[in-house]
Amino acid sequence: MSAKIPVGVLGATGMVGQHFLRFLANHPWFEVTWAGASDRSAGKKFRDATSWRLDGVMPESVAGLTVEECKPGNAPKLVFSATDASVATEIEQAFAGAEHVVVSNSRNHRMESDVALLVPEINADHLAIAAAQRARRGWKGLIVTNPNCSTVVLTMALAPLRQFGITRTVVTTMQAISGAGYPGVSSMDINANVVPFIGGEEEKVEIETQKILGGFEQGAFVPHPMRVSAHCNRVPVLDGHTATISVELSSEPPEQELIAAFAAFRGVPQERNLPSAPAVPVIYMPEKDRPQPRRDVERERGMAVFCGRLRTCPVFGYKFIALGHNTVRGAAGAAVLNAELMKTEGLLD
Amino acid sequence: MSAKIPVGVLGATGMVGQHFLRFLANHPWFEVTWAGASDRSAGKKFRDATSWRLDGVMPESVAGLTVEECKPGNAPKLVFSATDASVATEIEQAFAGAEHVVVSNSRNHRMESDVALLVPEINADHLAIAAAQRARRGWKGLIVTNPNCSTVVLTMALAPLRQFGITRTVVTTMQAISGAGYPGVSSMDINANVVPFIGGEEEKVEIETQKILGGFEQGAFVPHPMRVSAHCNRVPVLDGHTATISVELSSEPPEQELIAAFAAFRGVPQERNLPSAPAVPVIYMPEKDRPQPRRDVERERGMAVFCGRLRTCPVFGYKFIALGHNTVRGAAGAAVLNAELMKTEGLLD
Amino acid sequence: MSAKIPVGVLGATGMVGQHFLRFLANHPWFEVTWAGASDRSAGKKFRDATSWRLDGVMPESVAGLTVEECKPGNAPKLVFSATDASVATEIEQAFAGAEHVVVSNSRNHRMESDVALLVPEINADHLAIAAAQRARRGWKGLIVTNPNCSTVVLTMALAPLRQFGITRTVVTTMQAISGAGYPGVSSMDINANVVPFIGGEEEKVEIETQKILGGFEQGAFVPHPMRVSAHCNRVPVLDGHTATISVELSSEPPEQELIAAFAAFRGVPQERNLPSAPAVPVIYMPEKDRPQPRRDVERERGMAVFCGRLRTCPVFGYKFIALGHNTVRGAAGAAVLNAELMKTEGLLD
Amino acid sequence: MSAKIPVGVLGATGMVGQHFLRFLANHPWFEVTWAGASDRSAGKKFRDATSWRLDGVMPESVAGLTVEECKPGNAPKLVFSATDASVATEIEQAFAGAEHVVVSNSRNHRMESDVALLVPEINADHLAIAAAQRARRGWKGLIVTNPNCSTVVLTMALAPLRQFGITRTVVTTMQAISGAGYPGVSSMDINANVVPFIGGEEEKVEIETQKILGGFEQGAFVPHPMRVSAHCNRVPVLDGHTATISVELSSEPPEQELIAAFAAFRGVPQERNLPSAPAVPVIYMPEKDRPQPRRDVERERGMAVFCGRLRTCPVFGYKFIALGHNTVRGAAGAAVLNAELMKTEGLLD
Repeated sequence: MSAKIPVGVLGATGMVGQHFLRFLANHPWFEVTWAGASDRSAGKKFRDATSWRLDGVMPESVAGLTVEECKPGNAPKLVFSATDASVATEIEQAFAGAEHVVVSNSRNHRMESDVALLVPEINADHLAIAAAQRARRGWKGLIVTNPNCSTVVLTMALAPLRQFGITRTVVTTMQAISGAGYPGVSSMDINANVVPFIGGEEEKVEIETQKILGGFEQGAFVPHPMRVSAHCNRVPVLDGHTATISVELSSEPPEQELIAAFAAFRGVPQERNLPSAPAVPVIYMPEKDRPQPRRDVERERGMAVFCGRLRTCPVFGYKFIALGHNTVRGAAGAAVLNAELMKTEGLLD
Repeated sequence: MSAKIPVGVLGATGMVGQHFLRFLANHPWFEVTWAGASDRSAGKKFRDATSWRLDGVMPESVAGLTVEECKPGNAPKLVFSATDASVATEIEQAFAGAEHVVVSNSRNHRMESDVALLVPEINADHLAIAAAQRARRGWKGLIVTNPNCSTVVLTMALAPLRQFGITRTVVTTMQAISGAGYPGVSSMDINANVVPFIGGEEEKVEIETQKILGGFEQGAFVPHPMRVSAHCNRVPVLDGHTATISVELSSEPPEQELIAAFAAFRGVPQERNLPSAPAVPVIYMPEKDRPQPRRDVERERGMAVFCGRLRTCPVFGYKFIALGHNTVRGAAGAAVLNAELMKTEGLLD
Repeated sequence: MSAKIPVGVLGATGMVGQHFLRFLANHPWFEVTWAGASDRSAGKKFRDATSWRLDGVMPESVAGLTVEECKPGNAPKLVFSATDASVATEIEQAFAGAEHVVVSNSRNHRMESDVALLVPEINADHLAIAAAQRARRGWKGLIVTNPNCSTVVLTMALAPLRQFGITRTVVTTMQAISGAGYPGVSSMDINANVVPFIGGEEEKVEIETQKILGGFEQGAFVPHPMRVSAHCNRVPVLDGHTATISVELSSEPPEQELIAAFAAFRGVPQERNLPSAPAVPVIYMPEKDRPQPRRDVERERGMAVFCGRLRTCPVFGYKFIALGHNTVRGAAGAAVLNAELMKTEGLLD
Repeated sequence: MSAKIPVGVLGATGMVGQHFLRFLANHPWFEVTWAGASDRSAGKKFRDATSWRLDGVMPESVAGLTVEECKPGNAPKLVFSATDASVATEIEQAFAGAEHVVVSNSRNHRMESDVALLVPEINADHLAIAAAQRARRGWKGLIVTNPNCSTVVLTMALAPLRQFGITRTVVTTMQAISGAGYPGVSSMDINANVVPFIGGEEEKVEIETQKILGGFEQGAFVPHPMRVSAHCNRVPVLDGHTATISVELSSEPPEQELIAAFAAFRGVPQERNLPSAPAVPVIYMPEKDRPQPRRDVERERGMAVFCGRLRTCPVFGYKFIALGHNTVRGAAGAAVLNAELMKTEGLLD
């Protein structure tokens, strides 16, 4: 008999679902007791329904679960949603309508005016929208979302600089293949190549960033007024999205002050010592050629964002590099941290 | 008995030198008859002095040459310089002082106030500095240079837009490993990785661009006033530097006008039908995910620059992708095109 | 009005079909005038029906063709088959029954007792089965096949050694991703990885090799009695299958004799100077670390097989390396060379 | 005050040395208190003398050590040798002569008739040579070695089959770039390529295997009589050497018996529960396409060897795949396991 909080994963057999299962293995608060997938998997043992695509092997703890259909009923109160965008709207709303707390990695509800798009270090206060969401939708449950994997890297890197007045930013991402799932990117497309296009990605980075870094006033989200331009590219890297960032500030602090701001940055997850919170959420690396995805992305269990090379930008004043783990900090880990925050807010009771 | 112009290559046994030899094989005007290298190679047959590092095999036409020291004397009048920056200043000046025309790929003289930094499609008029250089330095010879491999891509992509008044640009490069020579980048550094730093590269892109796109007035170079900010990265690609470019123009033409400007762009090499000139120097690709280095870089013998994805930029008005072959258009091919231009100007007589 | 022989391609819009179209562009004897594909493409222009997946761009000569269904009727007499194995049996037999000469790259008919499995340098005499095939099947047309892409490399490398009496061989392949078509191998499977399994490949290499190197006596194929064991692996290489080969011979020639045998090897395509025949079909490289797929595979238009590192094997007497271009010599180029041979045999009249 | 056994690392600043430091961080028995390197590093803090080349960051525990020259004196009794082959003979003998126990990863002494070449699961009994070595050389210290990184994979995979009488084996390796150290393999050589040659590697695999799997009788090593032929290749993989193995046995057990033998295999390290010993030293994977280097190499802390795809070989009876971590099980981890074994034998007292 576990004293842990039972949780379910919607879309558990897919690649994002597998990331959830791996990240949640041995979690101190949560235990996966329920796995939802499509009709054709329902009824099978998880080990039989699933081709394990992640490096290493399937966690023993979930191999024996019986896969369920993605319908509320016998699922635990807390469910993580790794469902595909094509079905996420319907599934997530069905669960939220049936008293479930849905902590979603899907893009479908992120930009809704009554749904929190959370990065707990940055905008934990946005959770306050929950009451309005329930009231407006007539739900007893709740939907909370985390951002696109590239947006997390950018917002975590910009959050420490908000105090200096961000006015404009131009970001170019070099994104890992794991961001596209499985089979995802064909090796014929990406081997020794760059693909300078990822469908819908630039738009997501541009609008999600404004929502996350924006305020929450009088019960409504107020987007940050900064202008954001994103160039999104796929590169032959396994895990970790790297971003080059030029940023314009309304003040002109010396560079050392920005570096100090990265290092000093902390948020609610650190204050409350949440289990998945990195001790230092933004790690500034002084080496001239870091961070690098293959060398740094697994540090801090993939939950920190790494910055480096802060220097003057002839156009915008400042430029630097940022890196984050797209399937951890940008997906499964992000959602789990959201759930941890929600627990400490009493939203899982 | 060849009717071709005999040419020499300084630093012929190195990787850049090998690119020259391959590009010059079967050239209709030039024939490599002289190969210069370091003391320890001098006196050997080229095939014995050289580990051929390029794909395929050494051109038969140069295998039997006897390697010479990099000193003027029996070298042909026209020499291409592929010498390392650590020795290029001295060697190139010695040849120019001894009546040789040095067409150099080295960075050493690029930013000198009396040396042309040429991209023949863009600033053929800069060649007029030759007289001043000879007068000032007391040389009967001449030094002419081509830009850094990333600069070529950026300047070729911006040149068609100059007419709209370029005020600011932010560029992020994703550069091929061949740009670092041999052995160059360790596989332990770049396999499945991004290295967000290339020593000296960003500075070169920023200042060379202004010189190339600038004017030549009253016998002096006038840098273009645009502000340029570069982020330079190494990615696991063999050949071809890809760049994401955000650009601010002083006018606000519709996007289609910019695309038309790319397609309409021509320069002196096209007018004169120079042997190494691409028929269309800037090729705009309408596909949503092109250009791509592995798929496009070898087209047009590596001499064209490819652009794509022109779209609005929330920060600067316009953004797009550019791609060019770093060891051809960005090195050996660039220098050979310079020499072809110089021949038509009578500078090789 | 072309004087060339019109040809069709079955399965023209797929990746293998595209390889055929690229290889046939500018062919001196053949001209693609007909492109067959699935129902859903039929009626469209080729350029509209096809996502071009090969590096570079679609040949202009085929872009304007109207795609037809894969049914005999208005197709030219000679058709190349790039159809998927799931439909190749039916389609190819329909064409052969309707007087077409089907030169197929599909595996379906390769091991039939009345179908030639050709490598023209090795077993051009196997074409004599044609009469028996027509008689037995009641066809006025004909089906001829080329081997699996790995088999071509192995058989071309072993053919020069047949004279020494091959008794056993153990081969390990390291195969390029292009062998799996498009999208083919997921980048999540092969990036910085080896996949030590390719479905059905080892069996094909083992039995096809015996048929090809075997004889044709009294109207029947007599498999070569050698024993063949294959280990097939996928590696992150774009084009070119590399093989390590240990071989046991019934005689014990000195190593230099084997090297001389590689160099001296010629076949009917060389004697008849067929347009796609490499001048030297097996090129032995003396360098200690060659051949290598990326560096050598494009030489000789991809039609030669490269060997190297012949040395003593403590187990079998001899071991060496072989390399061939899987989509050229191992697919499209192989079939075209077959057709060229057939033309000189009068089989296309 | 640590209760752990202090240890030194010879060649600590190099890449192999760094692997030792990382593997020894948090070791329950050993603690690195001494780091030896070349003259030019001596006297500096380790963090200043060393460019950390492994993924992640330098262990804090060694960053503050003062680097010493590689001379006996103040070094701890137990030293691990990661010295380069060019200097290992002299350095290791100097330490062994000065009462140090040298547990070496270098190749220099491996094939000496009085030096143990250990794989503790296989030939722990070979340690008995220690007395003879000391007597013959007049040393109070001792040198013990571990095999080449490819040899470990092959011998661990063959050891469970020894009971069936191994007569011949043909092995082809596909080796990771990390095996060549830093900078090691140029990216220009290995990006999207295979290099079918690794200097000296095939010879090492062939002779080391016979010594390790051989016996120790009447005070002397008796090489195993099996014949071994190796084909060694470099592939673009980061960590993990994969091998295809064909093996001939003097008996003809059913395949299932071999699979059972892999699974049942245990050695002295497992019996004694040594800290670095994997619970199951040879893990047989039933999946049709495993093991794979990127997906499996990090399991079991890199100390197990993975086998798969056991099937009949038309030439030799049996064939299968093996995989091991070249820098852990094939280098640092191997040496540490040797030292653990030696401690339990009282050889460190």
